[in-house]
Amino acid sequence: LRPGQGTRDHPPAQAALRDRLLGAVVSCFKRHGAAAIDTPVLELRETLMGKYGEDTKLIYELQDQGGELLALRYDLTVPFARYLAMNKVTNMKRYHVAKVYRRDNPAMTRGRYREFYQCDFDIAGQFDPMIPDAECLKIVHEILSDLQLGDFVIKVNDRRILNGVFAVCGIPEKKFLPACSTVDKLDKVPWEEVRSEMVGEKGLSPEAVDRVGEYVQLHGGLDLIEQLLQDPKLSQNKLAKEGLGDMKLLFEYLTLFGITGKICFDLSLARGLDYYTGVIFEAVLLQQENKHVEETVSVGSVAGGGRYDGLVGMFDPKGRKVPCVGVSIGIERIFSILEQRLKASGEKLRTTETQVLVATPQKHLLAARLKLISELWDAGIKAEMLYRKDPKLLKQLQYCEDTGIPLAAIVGEQELADGVVKLRDVATREEVRMDTSCKRAKC
Amino acid sequence: LRPGQGTRDHPPAQAALRDRLLGAVVSCFKRHGAAAIDTPVLELRETLMGKYGEDTKLIYELQDQGGELLALRYDLTVPFARYLAMNKVTNMKRYHVAKVYRRDNPAMTRGRYREFYQCDFDIAGQFDPMIPDAECLKIVHEILSDLQLGDFVIKVNDRRILNGVFAVCGIPEKKFLPACSTVDKLDKVPWEEVRSEMVGEKGLSPEAVDRVGEYVQLHGGLDLIEQLLQDPKLSQNKLAKEGLGDMKLLFEYLTLFGITGKICFDLSLARGLDYYTGVIFEAVLLQQENKHVEETVSVGSVAGGGRYDGLVGMFDPKGRKVPCVGVSIGIERIFSILEQRLKASGEKLRTTETQVLVATPQKHLLAARLKLISELWDAGIKAEMLYRKDPKLLKQLQYCEDTGIPLAAIVGEQELADGVVKLRDVATREEVRMDTSCKRAKC
Repeated sequence: LRPGQGTRDHPPAQAALRDRLLGAVVSCFKRHGAAAIDTPVLELRETLMGKYGEDTKLIYELQDQGGELLALRYDLTVPFARYLAMNKVTNMKRYHVAKVYRRDNPAMTRGRYREFYQCDFDIAGQFDPMIPDAECLKIVHEILSDLQLGDFVIKVNDRRILNGVFAVCGIPEKKFLPACSTVDKLDKVPWEEVRSEMVGEKGLSPEAVDRVGEYVQLHGGLDLIEQLLQDPKLSQNKLAKEGLGDMKLLFEYLTLFGITGKICFDLSLARGLDYYTGVIFEAVLLQQENKHVEETVSVGSVAGGGRYDGLVGMFDPKGRKVPCVGVSIGIERIFSILEQRLKASGEKLRTTETQVLVATPQKHLLAARLKLISELWDAGIKAEMLYRKDPKLLKQLQYCEDTGIPLAAIVGEQELADGVVKLRDVATREEVRMDTSCKRAKC
Repeated sequence: LRPGQGTRDHPPAQAALRDRLLGAVVSCFKRHGAAAIDTPVLELRETLMGKYGEDTKLIYELQDQGGELLALRYDLTVPFARYLAMNKVTNMKRYHVAKVYRRDNPAMTRGRYREFYQCDFDIAGQFDPMIPDAECLKIVHEILSDLQLGDFVIKVNDRRILNGVFAVCGIPEKKFLPACSTVDKLDKVPWEEVRSEMVGEKGLSPEAVDRVGEYVQLHGGLDLIEQLLQDPKLSQNKLAKEGLGDMKLLFEYLTLFGITGKICFDLSLARGLDYYTGVIFEAVLLQQENKHVEETVSVGSVAGGGRYDGLVGMFDPKGRKVPCVGVSIGIERIFSILEQRLKASGEKLRTTETQVLVATPQKHLLAARLKLISELWDAGIKAEMLYRKDPKLLKQLQYCEDTGIPLAAIVGEQELADGVVKLRDVATREEVRMDTSCKRAKC
């Protein structure tokens, strides 16, 4: 008896933690003026095909039970683009928090699942360059700071710069995408391995690859942008020049936001998906490997995104483009970090919000409990009672302690006769008598 | 270009209304002390099979792409039972708000979809009779009152009473379930039609059916329960007697809750699903057909539920039973009612929560806007700006009016020189100057 492979139940303690985490992310998205939309988990199969490159094989398809061919969404970006094209929306700032599905090899301890939440914020529309892009980076910065996940860095690059590098190094244009996905591995493996994959598997010339290697191992800030803008080869390439100019503008805006300290212009960042066309970025958490050495290692990506100006046009019958830029927060990885931290701290998260337990100290008082709890519910107070006719008072108070209910409202024979309720602070055992007719406390 | 049949997108206005509606439902569930859980949309196919009777054909199955055979959940109840059995949980009060999937004929105008939200509250555990059951009815009463959906009635019955009726009328036991599903149609078609289906399609004897007809057309309150407890035939049937005794107890508790005015003991209520074993109920909205006549008609079910004491045992290897009772709020029907009402009222729901638009009245002030908005975001204020280098002030104020942003924070050359920000109330056009160094308002 178990759930499907790569999927999981969230018991109450996990659900409460997840709600808290999603709440923090959504509150940031709302702070930036995004509206919510919802799209179906089921999409027409043809909507998803041809959008994810070689990852298309990871899409869950439904059985043909008659009717349409359906599939489960792979991300929230393609459905968003379908939504924009379908409704001819050319201008929108939206967030979407929902589950997506990938027939991938699960690695549940590292937060990789087959069914998992994505938290996406996207800005669609034709605007002045880099203003929405800068806001996406600000959002990542706000969320990672807010959640206190420790030190992090947001790597930034631009597909136009990468393509410019490939072009000036002599990589043929039809090999740009495969070269891209190999370069993307540089955060996990050393350059030698990447080099041999490019030369071997991808069949690129060793000389061209070596020239690429000199560029993609660079990272830095504004200084590096300036240096590359002066680069004799790169400055001659139209795409690279455009990308570098925009990168400079982006850094200007990020300086005004005061967040360049966490931003790194990193030429090795390539991102997997085909649909990116401009700025791309990825946030990774840093961990000090050794307390005595000032060296940090990445513990994996927790947010990523970029600009995809062509995707909506793929859905529009007339190919009309709607430029988009967006960010996706990798909530599952963050969730497992917070879960481990909570476990280590020994802190117990409350799974309910109950304010008061309605209790009776003697037998035959079920009617009094039912009447009082009904009044409390009607007054909007979160109240519980044990589902027993005659529970022991000790058992009722124990339930409060087990579940973190702070107050007990006790009605006994004496209280009924006096027309009062005894309100007990479970932790301090302090008690006050409340007049039930006027609802004001007397000591 | 469209979403799958029977599914739909929620654009921002609808998503905002749905969030408000789900928020009201969840806040009621929390008021009653329920914890949230989450289970996957994907379940193993074998988990769902054999739980829904003839509705099993409506389950969406995934293609066999290697690995496990999966299906999309049909409701939240069976996954909940699977969860309880799997984790050996014998005692739990939980809510779950999530989408479920049915390969049914969609009727979107009446709120029937293939992908739709269910809002479930369930109490699992061995308790004293009718206390959790009464709470489920209280919850339906609270939610329908809170949402101001107009007049409603909650029909109540008990599978044990129905089975007792069938037994004393001479229906053979193996025909109880088919008889049940025919009787259930009595809210839509007259008795004559139900009678002929029972005699014709279901092959029951006309005499037995006529005897059933005398019972199942009865409805009332405590008086009817008392009358049936005295019924010479029914009072001899063990199951019916148990059911009627519990029904009397239920009415006692509902009287203490003060909600019997909306409760109707209705012997025609049968509910479709096989797994119910005790109390069943269904809430329907009432509408006055004619302003001058005091007659009301049902406009369909908006909530339903009941007791299912055997379902968890079906999953437990040793067949251990965990008694459960629960309620499901039919959120889609309620949503379409609220949507129509909103449309009729002409009221426009805000889709964002933005408090202030950061605006500039002259050109070349993008940097000032970016700096100010960044400070506002960092202070937790919901702020937007237009993604233009030099937008016209009129356009910026127009955006506030279009999207309902109440305030504009304006920084012009004068304000920059004076170290202030002009805060403008968009509706009244009132303006105050705020000192940006000490952040206190001066007039």
